[in-house]
Amino acid sequence: MLENIRVVLVNTSHPGNIGGAARAIKNMGLKRLYLVQPEQFPHGDAIARASGATDVLDNACVVETLEDALTGCSVVLGTSARDRRIPWPLLDPRECAQTSLQHAEVGGEVALVFGREYAGLTNEELQRCNFHVHIPSDPEFGSLNLAAAVQVLVYEVRMAWLALQGQPTKMSKVESTAMLNTQLVTVEELELFYRHLEETLIDIRFLDPEKPRHLMSRLRRLYGRSAITKLEMNILRGVLTETQKVVRGEKCKTDDV
Amino acid sequence: MLENIRVVLVNTSHPGNIGGAARAIKNMGLKRLYLVQPEQFPHGDAIARASGATDVLDNACVVETLEDALTGCSVVLGTSARDRRIPWPLLDPRECAQTSLQHAEVGGEVALVFGREYAGLTNEELQRCNFHVHIPSDPEFGSLNLAAAVQVLVYEVRMAWLALQGQPTKMSKVESTAMLNTQLVTVEELELFYRHLEETLIDIRFLDPEKPRHLMSRLRRLYGRSAITKLEMNILRGVLTETQKVVRGEKCKTDDV
Repeated sequence: MLENIRVVLVNTSHPGNIGGAARAIKNMGLKRLYLVQPEQFPHGDAIARASGATDVLDNACVVETLEDALTGCSVVLGTSARDRRIPWPLLDPRECAQTSLQHAEVGGEVALVFGREYAGLTNEELQRCNFHVHIPSDPEFGSLNLAAAVQVLVYEVRMAWLALQGQPTKMSKVESTAMLNTQLVTVEELELFYRHLEETLIDIRFLDPEKPRHLMSRLRRLYGRSAITKLEMNILRGVLTETQKVVRGEKCKTDDV
Repeated sequence: MLENIRVVLVNTSHPGNIGGAARAIKNMGLKRLYLVQPEQFPHGDAIARASGATDVLDNACVVETLEDALTGCSVVLGTSARDRRIPWPLLDPRECAQTSLQHAEVGGEVALVFGREYAGLTNEELQRCNFHVHIPSDPEFGSLNLAAAVQVLVYEVRMAWLALQGQPTKMSKVESTAMLNTQLVTVEELELFYRHLEETLIDIRFLDPEKPRHLMSRLRRLYGRSAITKLEMNILRGVLTETQKVVRGEKCKTDDV
């Protein structure tokens, strides 16, 4: 189950932090590390700080874009500082671990995403996330070291995983399995949907591309938190396709026949 | 209450770890650091890794013996690897935090003690502790970085302290209350939406009223679990209204102008 959970580091400056993250990942029984455009990697500092977790470094996937790092994921959790203009579903590290395991348990792929040392994740990157995670640090001195933040999140994942192993399966688990099942949409499918949705909203002139305001980000927030199944996605895409046909007059006409 | 809890590092080799520990301490709202015979301190690496938590370093007490570092304490909790010959009350980090706060709450002084990078605490030092704390790492790769171990324990202390204060562990509670609470749509509004949705799906001929199948019930399940806000509902209703205008030709036409 833990092998379904990947740690994604975006644009890391200090290779030492990559090593520290790798060590934390392996300490907590996880394995998978994605690096989106790391500034320096591979690097001796990474190996030194990994302190034996070199297999995690050796197997790390270095990719060009955040999107590449999220391939196949059914849920994306991004670490975030406290205040953001658009409110988003926000979890603490313990809730983050629970959400991660709910998905991993039924075969979903989970990404825990960490931003740059000084600037965190951009707003655009944060909008790619289904949930934001905030480590409840002292507001007066809130910014954790990157590897320390990874440590806290993977520690909570391990605690939740250990608890899960020790517990009898509960009734509700069957239900939630049926709901989430193996059929959850991936991030890519969700992105295609957002693109299709935006296109359609422009077609019906609900969205003005010159003045988009927060419309798409609000819709992303709504659908992003819903853990949409593939079946539901087919329905949503079908509705968009039919709407576009109407706009293009392929359907209006037949009404008059 | 948090000011009653001190972190004690015994015989630390790498000054960078002292800096990392200082940062973690300050991030989690603690202040006090004791150093028992550090190999190198003060040191530039400590200042660099403290990343602004220099006040914690400046105020650190450097002492000769573990005993000196434990002066006045009513409970001492020492980190330990899994198996020790002498069985001792063993806590996980969450229980450690609870025990710490139980003492701190009534004015007791608490010490969280961490051993050497490679060798941990000696058996003699462990016997000075009232409790041993083990971070449940993967037995195959169990040894955490020292600063990472400090981070986990002080993180749990902060989580327990926030819970005790009745404070949310996440800032967003105000926000998410605003988001989820007062502004959530009512059941009636949701029903009006479903009626509008069904109407529109018939208009665009996606739904055949003669053969409705499970379409509406699937959409109900999707939107029903999303805790939709009033703002989001306005958007969804707006989309439906614009779509209907297109179907009725009130909008297609203007496209050609």
